[in-house]
Amino acid sequence: MLKPPYLIVIGTVAIDELSTPFGVEQKVFGGSASYFSYAASFFTKVGVVAVVGKDFPEEYRQVLEERDIDLSHLEVLPGKTFHWKGKYETDMNSAITLQTDLNVLLDFKPKIHYSKTPEFVFLANIDPDLQLEVLDQVHGSSLKFVACDTMNFWIKNKCDAVKKVLGRVHAVFMNDGEARQLTGEVNLIKAAQYIHHLGPEYVIIKKGEHGALLYSHEGVFIYPAYPLETVFDPTGAGDSFAGGVMGYLAAARKVNLKTMKTAIAYGSIVASFTVEKFGLERLREVKRENFDKRLEVLKKICKI
Amino acid sequence: MLKPPYLIVIGTVAIDELSTPFGVEQKVFGGSASYFSYAASFFTKVGVVAVVGKDFPEEYRQVLEERDIDLSHLEVLPGKTFHWKGKYETDMNSAITLQTDLNVLLDFKPKIHYSKTPEFVFLANIDPDLQLEVLDQVHGSSLKFVACDTMNFWIKNKCDAVKKVLGRVHAVFMNDGEARQLTGEVNLIKAAQYIHHLGPEYVIIKKGEHGALLYSHEGVFIYPAYPLETVFDPTGAGDSFAGGVMGYLAAARKVNLKTMKTAIAYGSIVASFTVEKFGLERLREVKRENFDKRLEVLKKICKI
Repeated sequence: MLKPPYLIVIGTVAIDELSTPFGVEQKVFGGSASYFSYAASFFTKVGVVAVVGKDFPEEYRQVLEERDIDLSHLEVLPGKTFHWKGKYETDMNSAITLQTDLNVLLDFKPKIHYSKTPEFVFLANIDPDLQLEVLDQVHGSSLKFVACDTMNFWIKNKCDAVKKVLGRVHAVFMNDGEARQLTGEVNLIKAAQYIHHLGPEYVIIKKGEHGALLYSHEGVFIYPAYPLETVFDPTGAGDSFAGGVMGYLAAARKVNLKTMKTAIAYGSIVASFTVEKFGLERLREVKRENFDKRLEVLKKICKI
Repeated sequence: MLKPPYLIVIGTVAIDELSTPFGVEQKVFGGSASYFSYAASFFTKVGVVAVVGKDFPEEYRQVLEERDIDLSHLEVLPGKTFHWKGKYETDMNSAITLQTDLNVLLDFKPKIHYSKTPEFVFLANIDPDLQLEVLDQVHGSSLKFVACDTMNFWIKNKCDAVKKVLGRVHAVFMNDGEARQLTGEVNLIKAAQYIHHLGPEYVIIKKGEHGALLYSHEGVFIYPAYPLETVFDPTGAGDSFAGGVMGYLAAARKVNLKTMKTAIAYGSIVASFTVEKFGLERLREVKRENFDKRLEVLKKICKI
């Protein structure tokens, strides 16, 4: 039986087609599990539970392997890899989906066959019914911490399943729009409180250029985003943020308000690199030291 | 000749009519100079340069007098006091103007007749041509620091005059939408840089519930807003923020990145009280100690 990494992510591995005010790229290696695992790999050993088609390029696999990411659970099915075509207009804050081809994702039934459950589990943005199936597979004394993400599409179309997932995780990552949509509360503190009551001990609300808000039973934490003059491509910002947070927590091997604060700061820093180029290009150029340097700057910027 | 206070504000004193999701109020004591001076009075001696009509209620004057605000430059002209009617819908982030009756403001020609120029001067949001007339009156060795505010209306209709004002002040307060409108830059850091090049050493961008951003020759500072579960009436938030900032600076009697950071934090705290009730109601209930307490909480909330 396979020894588990400290952290696994269940999500998508995709071939994206992106258009931003800075350029158009036909084939970009993307997907929530790719961004998440690449970001987390700077902090801990991470594994990907996902599916690709027979067309998945060997060079994309090598990108994940260069970070020693465990691909034992990256299934290859006949057919084509999940494909997303998106566009950003001037404000760069929200993607406009132009086309989604689920392809092999339609037949994805995540099966986790490590010798025991990894300590940290992240359910990236996929169908909440699939997230529930994964939750049925992760339990036992080794499991420490499960977090999830979701999106407006599931909140609108499968709200009950989303709430069931929230009742079974320790933490949730959501953006401000999704938190407002789910709760009907405009005020973010009230929205976070509401979500907290649905189950998660830690509610992490991503506010894009305005940073992140943590609401927890131990207290509130607010942290700004690293100020960037140019956001080149926002794709993957949320997933690499979550990857930085969960990677840091898995490395710390304990979760409390203190570790969560530093984790959120690192997540924010990782995301600040992600958006500087297309896909994983920028993250492939940096080292852990680059995160530490930028974090020192950010700490100074928001200190009285 | 009259001895000047440390800080003066040139702006409006108004009778507002407000509608928010929490209620409707027919007569609320408002105006930029009222909110600004009341907020600043917790930190320093402040004077109001403004105009009211013969209808201006004695009890409103007493509200300012209870904080020992210098009203020697509050002119009374025949006619009615400036009246603004506004509405906030669910998102509470931007006011919808329903009616503006300038009344005596049409004949307002600010004349400053203190024995010497006050050290700190704030040009609240009024016609930029009036702001320029005031700038012609404030000079001399006693003058230390001039800051201004403006709004979308002037940026749209008198952009050249706004830019002339910016070329003659040490600091500007703007909200994020106005900064983007003036510069055509979506990215706030780039917008702040652009405005900085127009003249002001300190560019303070107000981001509502997301806090404030300072861009200066000495560095960048980002600070979150105090998290509130209920924003009852956002009117005056920006003016009382500026009042807190300028009041703190005038009391410190020097301006640099260090004093500016603490000033912005206090401004943000003062504004967090302002929005908890209609008009100046909430500020009339609090003491300087309340600011200090809330600031300690905010510091903790955004500290790693």
